[in-house]
Amino acid sequence: MTSSSNPSFAVVDWGTSSFRLWLLDRGGGVVSESRSGEGMMHAARHGFRAVLGRHLAKVNAPSGTPVLICGMAGARQGWVEAPYVHAPADLRSIAHKAVRVVEADHDVRILPGVAQNDPEVPDVMRGEETQLSGALDASAADDALVCMPGTHSKWVRVKDRRLDHFTTYMTGEIYALLTQHSILQHAVDDAGQESDNDALFLEAIEQARSDPERVWASFFGVRASQLLGFEDRTCGALRLSGLLIGAEIAAARSLFGAEKNVTLIASGPVSELYRKALKLNGFEISIINAEKASRGGLFRYAQQIWGC
Amino acid sequence: MTSSSNPSFAVVDWGTSSFRLWLLDRGGGVVSESRSGEGMMHAARHGFRAVLGRHLAKVNAPSGTPVLICGMAGARQGWVEAPYVHAPADLRSIAHKAVRVVEADHDVRILPGVAQNDPEVPDVMRGEETQLSGALDASAADDALVCMPGTHSKWVRVKDRRLDHFTTYMTGEIYALLTQHSILQHAVDDAGQESDNDALFLEAIEQARSDPERVWASFFGVRASQLLGFEDRTCGALRLSGLLIGAEIAAARSLFGAEKNVTLIASGPVSELYRKALKLNGFEISIINAEKASRGGLFRYAQQIWGC
Repeated sequence: MTSSSNPSFAVVDWGTSSFRLWLLDRGGGVVSESRSGEGMMHAARHGFRAVLGRHLAKVNAPSGTPVLICGMAGARQGWVEAPYVHAPADLRSIAHKAVRVVEADHDVRILPGVAQNDPEVPDVMRGEETQLSGALDASAADDALVCMPGTHSKWVRVKDRRLDHFTTYMTGEIYALLTQHSILQHAVDDAGQESDNDALFLEAIEQARSDPERVWASFFGVRASQLLGFEDRTCGALRLSGLLIGAEIAAARSLFGAEKNVTLIASGPVSELYRKALKLNGFEISIINAEKASRGGLFRYAQQIWGC
Repeated sequence: MTSSSNPSFAVVDWGTSSFRLWLLDRGGGVVSESRSGEGMMHAARHGFRAVLGRHLAKVNAPSGTPVLICGMAGARQGWVEAPYVHAPADLRSIAHKAVRVVEADHDVRILPGVAQNDPEVPDVMRGEETQLSGALDASAADDALVCMPGTHSKWVRVKDRRLDHFTTYMTGEIYALLTQHSILQHAVDDAGQESDNDALFLEAIEQARSDPERVWASFFGVRASQLLGFEDRTCGALRLSGLLIGAEIAAARSLFGAEKNVTLIASGPVSELYRKALKLNGFEISIINAEKASRGGLFRYAQQIWGC
């Protein structure tokens, strides 16, 4: 806590299934924070205003503290729709496109997402643009290939510090579907996710790299391998995540060309999995903490809106 | 009905989620039939014997009619486990490996599945071997590449009328997961599945053929395309099925080499989708009706076991 008596802004990363609020001081230091699973899907049923109010109360935010939000709260099915800015986009100038929430008692604004308005490769993001903005502030590079793993992983080409174009891979969501709802639910157990068996994960990454089309034939093989006694259930989760992350990276590599450097914006266990997988695919990797990047982006935009 | 007074065998294709029973006369003609959704998953909870008994009663099977079953009823989690025969396998000689169900009142047997007992490409099938056997009986070819679409599509290489090796693609199951449980559930509606818009489907097939790795980037694009107003929800189902079937065929093509001919064993709407998709991938296609093939295979095996 740098200065609990002097908070300046509350900033919120409001995703589909997660809510994170930070109370920041004038220097961007964290005064306090509050997080929960009350993402957009929850709040759409239970009320965005109520959810935000509870978290503000929890961190003892002074009445009238301005609030800046990024993420799915600005989607059409969110709180108030914040229309997309279009790629290529200068992320330094999107703060003034934030939308004011009239329903709120005080100054609450939601940042826009970014749309790639191209019928050949249509794509959208909400929240990652703010994270990327924070990451770019922390980096000296004007050009970069950026990998942001998640439920919907984003790969972004940055040119001259602008978001030039990007692509979404549903890697995290497909992993969850396969391990929770498919026949492969019988091929994984929680122990596997805890397991530290690098070899299995890396073998799957290498397979996806050297023969990406075989990935489609390998999903069912995870189950067959266990039925035939070659592997057990502790192997399933690692192998599946290796296949899916490997397929994402192989596909991104073919799309974004033979780039040697990648900026990985990630936190938590997924960060280490992607680091290993990217390395095996020949990338030089710079890692930026995803949460810090989100907070940094939100702070910069809050400063632009309300001054420091 | 050829001869309702003279049934010889009851044969059953007992899948994961479906049950189909035919009462056959000595020539293999259908005396009567009964089908339901009481597949292995249902029967494991409610009792295999009871389900079979009800269907036998429904078709008025004479008491003591012998019953031959193929499919998931022979899985470890099924009625009685029928151990796999191993590929390469001569499908003409698997009937004597059928397992007798002791619990049954009369002669009930379950056919084995086929396992590919190779740690590099482990795979299993239950039911498709019987279908394939019936299809081979109906075909003059000694060698063939066979595509059997479904929840878990099987591609089989037949050599000298033997099942040489095979691969499973989870195409049907992944389609169901994406359209029912993922963010893409908002991108499809039932009208789309009814729609006759070939162009969308074929465009997705062609995309998967010419650039298979882009498929991974295209799933989320189905949703983004609608958010940005390029397409509407009636397009989603066709596009997704085109991407997934296209990815399967592209992967199988890379795995099974530059074969020109393929035997498609299918029935229902999926048959026409695969026919178009295979054609666009340059295949010459012979179509064999999947249900007739299953029945034919079961009949041949029943004859081998009980004589004609």
